[in-house]
Amino acid sequence: MTTPELGLPMPVPAEGLPARVRIHEVGARDGLQNEKATVPTETKAEFVRRLADAGLGTIEATSFVHPKWVPQLADAEQLFPLVRDLGDLSGTALPVLVPNERGLDRALALGATRIAVFASATESFAKANLNRTVDEALAMFEPVVRRAKDQDAHVRGYLSMCFGDPWEGPVPVPQVVRVCRALLDMGCDELSLGDTIGVATPGHVRALLTALNRQGVATASIGVHFHDTYGQALSNTLAALQHGVTTVDASAGGLGGCPYAKSATGNLATEDLVWMLTGLGIDTGVDLDRLTATSVWMAEQLGRPSPSRTVRALSHQE
Amino acid sequence: MTTPELGLPMPVPAEGLPARVRIHEVGARDGLQNEKATVPTETKAEFVRRLADAGLGTIEATSFVHPKWVPQLADAEQLFPLVRDLGDLSGTALPVLVPNERGLDRALALGATRIAVFASATESFAKANLNRTVDEALAMFEPVVRRAKDQDAHVRGYLSMCFGDPWEGPVPVPQVVRVCRALLDMGCDELSLGDTIGVATPGHVRALLTALNRQGVATASIGVHFHDTYGQALSNTLAALQHGVTTVDASAGGLGGCPYAKSATGNLATEDLVWMLTGLGIDTGVDLDRLTATSVWMAEQLGRPSPSRTVRALSHQE
Repeated sequence: MTTPELGLPMPVPAEGLPARVRIHEVGARDGLQNEKATVPTETKAEFVRRLADAGLGTIEATSFVHPKWVPQLADAEQLFPLVRDLGDLSGTALPVLVPNERGLDRALALGATRIAVFASATESFAKANLNRTVDEALAMFEPVVRRAKDQDAHVRGYLSMCFGDPWEGPVPVPQVVRVCRALLDMGCDELSLGDTIGVATPGHVRALLTALNRQGVATASIGVHFHDTYGQALSNTLAALQHGVTTVDASAGGLGGCPYAKSATGNLATEDLVWMLTGLGIDTGVDLDRLTATSVWMAEQLGRPSPSRTVRALSHQE
Repeated sequence: MTTPELGLPMPVPAEGLPARVRIHEVGARDGLQNEKATVPTETKAEFVRRLADAGLGTIEATSFVHPKWVPQLADAEQLFPLVRDLGDLSGTALPVLVPNERGLDRALALGATRIAVFASATESFAKANLNRTVDEALAMFEPVVRRAKDQDAHVRGYLSMCFGDPWEGPVPVPQVVRVCRALLDMGCDELSLGDTIGVATPGHVRALLTALNRQGVATASIGVHFHDTYGQALSNTLAALQHGVTTVDASAGGLGGCPYAKSATGNLATEDLVWMLTGLGIDTGVDLDRLTATSVWMAEQLGRPSPSRTVRALSHQE
């Protein structure tokens, strides 16, 4: 069978789904952070510019983490002004990750108005990633969030390992809900529920969302962040949309995940998501052709093909 | 992030889904038919044996098509008795594809009790694949189905291009419904709705299923056959399950699709499907470890890695 030349799916809406979805594009930060070879700052800025040009309204630009921990993003101080001052990004939200108060200082000094903190639902990952207990990490974020809110910044709270953990196995829903509640109570405007190892399935997604609602968390404040390790990211996204979720994280070209794998199976690819949403008649503002061209261009910069199936199909790339 | 060692997702059922799903395993026929290098007959038989051992209850074994058209399956006459006479397959259904009366004769002579015919929803694909109009192809199948039913054989009607066609674009739902109705009216016991080029999205799936129901087609007689060309196969499957569909086609290891691509994005991988169904608490009878081991073994026989994300994650294969 030849690859089709359709370009876009036929739009056929389904009942009970939102009219519009906001895609939180993480390719420039989450997608690139594990790249071994240093990507030039100008290439990263051009990547963000092309993503904005493709219609993505929220593009996570970089992380103000210590360069020792994420060498690939050590150029945050140079990149962020470069990106922010691109003339055509006036309508684009450019959140940045900040791990602590020092990171917040650096981000605010450069004029960042949207920040994100990065918590863990499990003790094992909190220890591995943050060298702290879950509650110690929350205590570290508390002044970060408070001071960001004092500056009227929008704050997103990422939460890793919301479904399974490589050391602990399945993660109990109430354990996740407790940390979500703590992030919102300290002032986070929005959550991003991360299935960091990609093990979730649709019933588990619905169960967590329902439990959050029961604890007073509005669906409007919840974003979902699925990984495609087991090929489940898009069906989990569909389950979240059916629950009313309207914020979905995705990575252009499926960038990210395990940097050692030739064809990484990491983040949900933005193109695969846009294909489904377009088919469902859900507005995203994204031009799939431009986005695909951007991912093909970025794949050339990185020297390996995109793992996004939609990018491969539309670009005949293999 | 390291690959997890969970092995299986946490089962969390979701409302409105079937308790049990029958997987129609197509890897040995649809998965292998486009392979360029000839796979030895003994290897194919061993593949089927291992699939049955992993718990798959319906395994499409081969096709009695003319060897000129599908050289890879030219050994159907040798393979089918080899597979059927394996001692441990007594509980396994072994359907075979037959393109015409000559193929039916060959299959029945060897004792096949389940056959499948292969129709098209579009004129372009009917012409390309069968060198006939849609109605001429239906006329060709009519005596095949009638004679198979006279022998008490179970008959499946495959229908290609149910959602999009590479020459014609989106395929109108009423056009698909008409051919489905014709296949059932001539005596087919079951349909398999094929998204041959992988362009479908969940709303389109629901629309076709609803339209079929309105024309008196029971959901119990409908199977779905999705391709992962745009990464949509599993979310489309979820939509079909939510509609009540309980028969899902899948290919072990994701075998099939474009044989020229290094990492084919063809059939829905059985392992990715089983991961989702297991997570949803839906019984399939399949042992995911054994199935994954089978796909790893088959990937070794074919000399390239499996495109199934679940196989890659569980086997650390890349």
